[in-house]
Amino acid sequence: MAKKVFNRIGVLTSGGDAPGMNAAIRAVVRSCVYYDITPYGVMEGYDGLIKNKIHKMDASSVKHIIHQGGTILKSARSKRFMTIGGREKAWNNIKKKKLDGLVVIGGDGTFKGAMALGSEHDIPIVGIPGTIDNDIFGTDFTLGFDTATNTVVEAVDKIRDTATSHSRLFFIEVMGRDAGFIAVHSGIAAGSEEILIPEKDRDVEHLFESLERTSRRNKTSRLVIVAEGDQNGSVYNLERQVKERFGDRYETKVTILGHVQRGGRPTCNDRVLASRLGVSAVEALMEGKRNVMIGTRNKKINFTDFDKATKQNPKMDEELIRVANIISI
Amino acid sequence: MAKKVFNRIGVLTSGGDAPGMNAAIRAVVRSCVYYDITPYGVMEGYDGLIKNKIHKMDASSVKHIIHQGGTILKSARSKRFMTIGGREKAWNNIKKKKLDGLVVIGGDGTFKGAMALGSEHDIPIVGIPGTIDNDIFGTDFTLGFDTATNTVVEAVDKIRDTATSHSRLFFIEVMGRDAGFIAVHSGIAAGSEEILIPEKDRDVEHLFESLERTSRRNKTSRLVIVAEGDQNGSVYNLERQVKERFGDRYETKVTILGHVQRGGRPTCNDRVLASRLGVSAVEALMEGKRNVMIGTRNKKINFTDFDKATKQNPKMDEELIRVANIISI
Amino acid sequence: MAKKVFNRIGVLTSGGDAPGMNAAIRAVVRSCVYYDITPYGVMEGYDGLIKNKIHKMDASSVKHIIHQGGTILKSARSKRFMTIGGREKAWNNIKKKKLDGLVVIGGDGTFKGAMALGSEHDIPIVGIPGTIDNDIFGTDFTLGFDTATNTVVEAVDKIRDTATSHSRLFFIEVMGRDAGFIAVHSGIAAGSEEILIPEKDRDVEHLFESLERTSRRNKTSRLVIVAEGDQNGSVYNLERQVKERFGDRYETKVTILGHVQRGGRPTCNDRVLASRLGVSAVEALMEGKRNVMIGTRNKKINFTDFDKATKQNPKMDEELIRVANIISI
Amino acid sequence: MAKKVFNRIGVLTSGGDAPGMNAAIRAVVRSCVYYDITPYGVMEGYDGLIKNKIHKMDASSVKHIIHQGGTILKSARSKRFMTIGGREKAWNNIKKKKLDGLVVIGGDGTFKGAMALGSEHDIPIVGIPGTIDNDIFGTDFTLGFDTATNTVVEAVDKIRDTATSHSRLFFIEVMGRDAGFIAVHSGIAAGSEEILIPEKDRDVEHLFESLERTSRRNKTSRLVIVAEGDQNGSVYNLERQVKERFGDRYETKVTILGHVQRGGRPTCNDRVLASRLGVSAVEALMEGKRNVMIGTRNKKINFTDFDKATKQNPKMDEELIRVANIISI
Repeated sequence: MAKKVFNRIGVLTSGGDAPGMNAAIRAVVRSCVYYDITPYGVMEGYDGLIKNKIHKMDASSVKHIIHQGGTILKSARSKRFMTIGGREKAWNNIKKKKLDGLVVIGGDGTFKGAMALGSEHDIPIVGIPGTIDNDIFGTDFTLGFDTATNTVVEAVDKIRDTATSHSRLFFIEVMGRDAGFIAVHSGIAAGSEEILIPEKDRDVEHLFESLERTSRRNKTSRLVIVAEGDQNGSVYNLERQVKERFGDRYETKVTILGHVQRGGRPTCNDRVLASRLGVSAVEALMEGKRNVMIGTRNKKINFTDFDKATKQNPKMDEELIRVANIISI
Repeated sequence: MAKKVFNRIGVLTSGGDAPGMNAAIRAVVRSCVYYDITPYGVMEGYDGLIKNKIHKMDASSVKHIIHQGGTILKSARSKRFMTIGGREKAWNNIKKKKLDGLVVIGGDGTFKGAMALGSEHDIPIVGIPGTIDNDIFGTDFTLGFDTATNTVVEAVDKIRDTATSHSRLFFIEVMGRDAGFIAVHSGIAAGSEEILIPEKDRDVEHLFESLERTSRRNKTSRLVIVAEGDQNGSVYNLERQVKERFGDRYETKVTILGHVQRGGRPTCNDRVLASRLGVSAVEALMEGKRNVMIGTRNKKINFTDFDKATKQNPKMDEELIRVANIISI
Repeated sequence: MAKKVFNRIGVLTSGGDAPGMNAAIRAVVRSCVYYDITPYGVMEGYDGLIKNKIHKMDASSVKHIIHQGGTILKSARSKRFMTIGGREKAWNNIKKKKLDGLVVIGGDGTFKGAMALGSEHDIPIVGIPGTIDNDIFGTDFTLGFDTATNTVVEAVDKIRDTATSHSRLFFIEVMGRDAGFIAVHSGIAAGSEEILIPEKDRDVEHLFESLERTSRRNKTSRLVIVAEGDQNGSVYNLERQVKERFGDRYETKVTILGHVQRGGRPTCNDRVLASRLGVSAVEALMEGKRNVMIGTRNKKINFTDFDKATKQNPKMDEELIRVANIISI
Repeated sequence: MAKKVFNRIGVLTSGGDAPGMNAAIRAVVRSCVYYDITPYGVMEGYDGLIKNKIHKMDASSVKHIIHQGGTILKSARSKRFMTIGGREKAWNNIKKKKLDGLVVIGGDGTFKGAMALGSEHDIPIVGIPGTIDNDIFGTDFTLGFDTATNTVVEAVDKIRDTATSHSRLFFIEVMGRDAGFIAVHSGIAAGSEEILIPEKDRDVEHLFESLERTSRRNKTSRLVIVAEGDQNGSVYNLERQVKERFGDRYETKVTILGHVQRGGRPTCNDRVLASRLGVSAVEALMEGKRNVMIGTRNKKINFTDFDKATKQNPKMDEELIRVANIISI
């Protein structure tokens, strides 16, 4: 098969935004320029394909964005794109703009949308995993995860100041509806006493035992990191149970870190990863790849079919959980 | 009257902790050393006076703490100190340790406690305002306010990334149960569209008008900063009302910044202020001052009787509110 | 005299850039919009007036810049503007664009240029002090000073980690060719042992004595903050003299912080100050003010004739130097 | 062979300090406690072994250090330890304290010292790579590298503000005497136009061409990242050559980032890595490992003989250099 010639490539961001998306857009656009391809930016995710919000870009469109959180192309969830009719409209605009391929940056939902479009119409698509949760199969890290964990660690460092000064027990909820990656990494790094994640059905008794143990050692600051999706329910619920059990022994406080975790200047790692994936996504399209997500495995570029990337879940690193248990004694 | 000779001075932190308290402790201790006075650290606020947790310090006790949040002396609220008997116990320990004076770092409650002790027993006390809320009469700034507002601004900068990328309306609750200083300063600095504070009984209609106005201008990111003590109730309540009024026009989100605001490395300003107040507190005791809070007014050291400091409230700067209104158009 | 009607106001930044300039530009532009005045941005300082790089702005021209360092209008030093002919050209462009007034943001040189232009041609000009050095007479603080001192303090906090771990003596050069404000504020806040500034002709003997003293106390980390303009010459010169005197007793290191001090996200304070000054500058023009710099004195808006602002120097706060001496024992 | 029983393990840091060393010390100490081994801290590196500065530690010795830069055990280079006599003295103290094994944290020199000691005396030693340069064979990352690159990127983000505002060409020297890892990672992440490293003998002509090219595109900010060990000599030399070639076309500036790169709060990654390596080092000793450095390869724990770790050099990732070239167009 003769290699397709790529004259125009579109790029969009979809789903929740993540730090590093701008660095990835920049790398896609600059790689296009490098390979004499004209880059097109699609605004507001798949909605922009449907509404024909597709604009020509060049190297200067992406200047001074590598260090910015969020996404200059904006992001949105598109209900219309979930319908055949919506994707038909998108396809018509793709044809109108003569785009030869697409790079989509986002998470699970983004890749499902890409799969649907790619199966119905002749457009090669390559995906870049951009989500702070790190919950995508086929890559060691997703864009935004490194930044988000550092944001959490900085916030918990601040809370520790107060926890220590007042001998308080803090429950800190971090993002992660289905995956505990943020909780485990930031929990170890913040020196928390306990980490509760969706992957483990540790009941609250385990927490009680840990509190009994540290209480005997007169440890003054106690930080419990709880992933959103933990099976013991909300942090408020946990706080209530501790109060019922321990009464006044602990002064408890709850903090939900919330949306600060999604934003912020991307870390060095996230920018380097974004730059690698952006360049490789354009090269993958040029080499005839389609319907694949691009990621890294053991520091090397790795491809995963959208089908697999969206159906499988990455595994929690049991070694890290073991480390957390040993050093939180 | 012959000047009292000061051989030993005690220092304690009480009430909620604030960044800069450690820098103030350091300045008190080092000033004592400079003036050949032996400094004593009291642990856990007034409780430590009652429990005789009073330890000799020297220059090396305060090394490498100027940049740390929290307080190495710890802080606590003491119920026993609110009783005459509790203060009697404290007084006995003060006599036992031969302390000639006390420096207390904290807020309203701290100064009320100092007043009670000072009126019942012969111990000169000087107070240093340490609270992130800036709600103390008699000083331009309290320790921790500058750090807390910067923490808020950094957090809101991150949220803006997401707000902009998704065209969302964010309600962000910041600390300030009785005072809107944090909200006003950080709201202006973060470029928020609206600031709601306890001092102003702007009803929610004002917010609605502002939303109508910005909506017509197609402004994409909308940030509403709400002080804890705002009279329209919680941020969740505000969100509900906006949803009722505007339906789907706005995608709303709520973030409660919470305890991250209390911690963190103090800013340059807070460290400089802490250093000045710490030195001046020791000198004020030496000069015969008692029952006064030390602060700054127009960059000069200023004394306020505890009585006045605890009864009056600092005024909100109307000029700043005017500025906020003009530039949030 | 009938008040002049202002339809169009130009704004420019000139001289070295400073964090907070963008926040000031934003406030000027938004105040104009608020008062139904059309704002014009002049690119590259006075050079842009000469080259007619003058563009209409509106509220959206300044979105998402409040938190950015540098200046979106760019800055440059203009040799041609120092000539009568250059200013004549500038004046022609001002007339062509029908600008009724100018807001100029910068330092000494900026105000001297404004004075020359304003004395030769009928254009009211108001200045905003924007320079990290805080060396402008007529205002308590200049834009960028608060950010710069925090940048220095953060850097020195990092260096202290290393200094302490290795028992080293660090000479750290900070900006300040004629003024020691950055050195004094950051030196106190960073807990440095010694601060050398242009205003004091402390000879190197004073440093030697201090080193002898701390050496006897076995202090492990020694940080000496040196303003660029210190009279003992460069930090390398100081290092050499210490080596000659103390031989191997100290392991010395030199760090010149350099240009990182000029950039960065402005602090809360700098953004609030910029917002106040920007609003007030527009209002001052509307009220008929001309040839004045706008600043703050004791938290209130304050006007100073350009003539005075450029001829006088702000005084170093002797109280701060006294504090520094006491706590660096 | 019967497994040796470990009752006492010593830990020390040696060579240049790196962020994450404290987190590693903490993990070693806490793992010891977990496995009922008594941990001993050796002060000031190998010098402390010779001078018998060896102290018993427990879990509370390492509280609140996970987030601190530097090393609480201090570090030093020891000339005496390079002699047989020095090591003999060290060995006597090891026997006196009944240490059954050692964990040494540092770089090349540290491991060479460990090898010498281990070959002459019967003491099992495991090494943890702690150096910001990432120049150790046998591990994907060394402790401190992630923090150092983020520190550089933050600094360059600030410099870019100024570079852009003034259309300047900046030469920024970063650490890396023999290896360009810091330069390449931070150079990509900071969006620099050119990266000069010791591994590549790009002559200055390549830089000239790049400058010609970007000059034609009217790019406004130009950042050149130069590793200390680059073969074109110092950044000042480079600046001079550019001035000779391009005359006034570029306003050039030089910044040497220096020692700020060694300090600072460790990132999430560095703390997680330190925690893993610290736990694994203790377990490795228990399992009979000796004379090996512990690192990670592809996210898994990996052992390398000291001999190999000190003789081989890690390879620069050519893929990253390719990416840098493509996106710096």
